[in-house]
Amino acid sequence: MSDLLYGVNPVTEALRGSRRQPQEMLLQDGSRSARLEELEQAARKLNLQVRLCRRQELDKLVGHTNHQGVLLRVAPFPYLSIEELIAVARQTERPVFFLILDGITDPHNFGAILRSADAAGCHGVIVAKDRSCPVTGVVEKSAAGALSHIPICQVTNLARLMDQLREENIWLYGLAGEEGATSLYDADLKSDLALIVGSEGSGLRPVIRKRCDLFLSIPMQGGVPSLNASVAAAVTMFEVVRQRSA
Amino acid sequence: MSDLLYGVNPVTEALRGSRRQPQEMLLQDGSRSARLEELEQAARKLNLQVRLCRRQELDKLVGHTNHQGVLLRVAPFPYLSIEELIAVARQTERPVFFLILDGITDPHNFGAILRSADAAGCHGVIVAKDRSCPVTGVVEKSAAGALSHIPICQVTNLARLMDQLREENIWLYGLAGEEGATSLYDADLKSDLALIVGSEGSGLRPVIRKRCDLFLSIPMQGGVPSLNASVAAAVTMFEVVRQRSA
Repeated sequence: MSDLLYGVNPVTEALRGSRRQPQEMLLQDGSRSARLEELEQAARKLNLQVRLCRRQELDKLVGHTNHQGVLLRVAPFPYLSIEELIAVARQTERPVFFLILDGITDPHNFGAILRSADAAGCHGVIVAKDRSCPVTGVVEKSAAGALSHIPICQVTNLARLMDQLREENIWLYGLAGEEGATSLYDADLKSDLALIVGSEGSGLRPVIRKRCDLFLSIPMQGGVPSLNASVAAAVTMFEVVRQRSA
Repeated sequence: MSDLLYGVNPVTEALRGSRRQPQEMLLQDGSRSARLEELEQAARKLNLQVRLCRRQELDKLVGHTNHQGVLLRVAPFPYLSIEELIAVARQTERPVFFLILDGITDPHNFGAILRSADAAGCHGVIVAKDRSCPVTGVVEKSAAGALSHIPICQVTNLARLMDQLREENIWLYGLAGEEGATSLYDADLKSDLALIVGSEGSGLRPVIRKRCDLFLSIPMQGGVPSLNASVAAAVTMFEVVRQRSA
């Protein structure tokens, strides 16, 4: 079993990071850019097998042509259990900061959210197994390397997971745009918490909503009633960063 | 001269908004969803011509199949001059809040930034004519309707424009990740200001950098050294929102 990453940045990050064991590099044969040459050297240094392939072969493996001439076979994504994730968070001696995704099915959005979560110092991302897209090459590319760093936990029953977090005294804050929600800027985000982001189209499911301690909304001023899900997640996560660094 | 919008949300927003005069609706013939029926009714109410087309004809006009069965011909995008933009901003009696984009060439990012700028109450977006993508259908779709609301100004010489803004006592704050930049959360963002966002790859050009009054950076904690350009822009714009609402 292995997964396939592609693109110069994701492959560079994966060679640097340590969480997914690289197994083989597939490089476009013929003349190559300096960055591809560097990647080949990096692979040789790690005693990684490098196989030269025709461009068409790479296209076929990835399913499109947007791979920049380099693919990397890596071990399957090492999801953490929730117990491991909590242990990791407690070790850092910072207040717990989790992100829960329920229904982010667009791989670009998923990747972008992982990139922002990593940058915001989020301890880990929890995804509902049947309601999120798997960690595909598109996700890896949009995450721009964050998948090598940020822990991810996949659960089948998100409601039960939320109950488990509550028992750990971790607050559950749902992102929601409706009236009655607390402005992001009026909420206290310094305690142990998990932010919950629903699907861009339909928001949080009732079974999730009723387990939230508080609903957060981002004050909106323009003519468009909502933000992109990955933007809303990032704005909220960086408000956590701001409050905790103040 | 006309432009072509497509997709249910962008077309809905364009029929609601008033800045781009709708000229003709092109609807997929055959059985249609309730939302397409609603759009047809909305068009008829506006005395707009509705033409039924075969799906393949719509595919051909848009260049791909992701149009959801509805196209709208609208008048060309009505860019504002910088003088008009400043006048609009001064009228609101809020501190001036502009966003300057120099080198955002990805239409998804451009659209996402416009959507966030509108939501953050930005007075207008200024783009460098030769260094940004035009307002295409992809931009419209990613902007999710924001193009019907947020004023845009296109300039050929961004350096000269920045000098002009300085004469108006508008601060010029560049987004930059490097050392020596001021943390976003330590900067005062309550005065008249324009935020400047460079290209995702190479950041701000020297000619732009030397005209900035201050460089802002978003504190980064993870293993990935940067944020997506549209995320960085949104996080910064909503810090402006927070400070001004505090």
